[in-house]
Amino acid sequence: MEIRTEPTTKFVVMPPSNMPRQFARLLQDGHGVDVTFQVAGETFAAHRYVLASRSSVFLADLFGPMKDKAMSSILINDMEARVFKAMLYFIYTDTMPDIDKEDALVITQHLLVAADKYDLERLKLMCEHKLCEYIDTRTVATTLALAEQHGCHGLKRACFSFLKSPSHLQEVTEKESFDHLMTSCPSVVKELLAKVAHCP
Amino acid sequence: MEIRTEPTTKFVVMPPSNMPRQFARLLQDGHGVDVTFQVAGETFAAHRYVLASRSSVFLADLFGPMKDKAMSSILINDMEARVFKAMLYFIYTDTMPDIDKEDALVITQHLLVAADKYDLERLKLMCEHKLCEYIDTRTVATTLALAEQHGCHGLKRACFSFLKSPSHLQEVTEKESFDHLMTSCPSVVKELLAKVAHCP
Repeated sequence: MEIRTEPTTKFVVMPPSNMPRQFARLLQDGHGVDVTFQVAGETFAAHRYVLASRSSVFLADLFGPMKDKAMSSILINDMEARVFKAMLYFIYTDTMPDIDKEDALVITQHLLVAADKYDLERLKLMCEHKLCEYIDTRTVATTLALAEQHGCHGLKRACFSFLKSPSHLQEVTEKESFDHLMTSCPSVVKELLAKVAHCP
Repeated sequence: MEIRTEPTTKFVVMPPSNMPRQFARLLQDGHGVDVTFQVAGETFAAHRYVLASRSSVFLADLFGPMKDKAMSSILINDMEARVFKAMLYFIYTDTMPDIDKEDALVITQHLLVAADKYDLERLKLMCEHKLCEYIDTRTVATTLALAEQHGCHGLKRACFSFLKSPSHLQEVTEKESFDHLMTSCPSVVKELLAKVAHCP
């Protein structure tokens, strides 16, 4: 006689990972940090081995043949402090930090550049995904330039898709940001023309 | 005129997290480790701050008031080496390592005990979930004892559910492992009797 019908595994429910929260706290508390970064007047402390595990660029900077063994403070002069902070948060937690809505577009654009520079492929894709959401007639030219300059194929296709609409295209070409796109990325404008010409 | 129909976000596909793989390598390579454990004749090296971030017990052991500041090697005398190794893997990656099928039941049982001892709640639930899969007439008495001794409510309910089948119950009570359950956890046997008596 067999009256058992319930699968036994249904009795244990797995909660989501708590590692992001634990590593966010490790970063925030700063216990055991062994390197600091000076970024636009702010100081950030971190653990070398965490950075090096996550980014081949930090690995080379902190442990490669060019490293300075005594170096414990590193100057970052091509990034805003809030962008570096967001990048560190990603490195420790593999998630994006909460960003104020009003700053989200600009920070995400800068964070994509930082992710590309530090070889954080997943962060770069997260930024691309976010920037896809922000595509509109006001943002698309700048986003397309960014996608072209940093090899973001998905984001570029999303911009082209948006610009296949004649009304979008017309509105966008009248903006100053489009003039800037023509100057900075003339090849991508030619590519756009070819795509629009083939559009049924 | 609006001919855009595709959502722009569909152009960027997010890959799964690569952090588990990166941190598995950090553990394996052993760069920057600052503590070692002697476990049943084997030595394991790790990063104190990773351990302390993930386990309140390691936090107390490594940084609490009772710690020995000079202590860099810790003796673990209540665990098999392969179980400690699996626990370290979880701590770094938040995932279970691959375990040979033939050893899986025993290692998972021991890993549950280790997870309970080191306050790794998520690992404990992973082990409970795995042990639910292994419930059969051969394993259920031992698993029920383990669930009772380590406060695993879901696993305990899964065992009771299995034992509601009279044929399962009869087969199990004839085994030596059930005699051991009666000796080690008499209260849980009484609980089982009450549940079976109420079974329609």
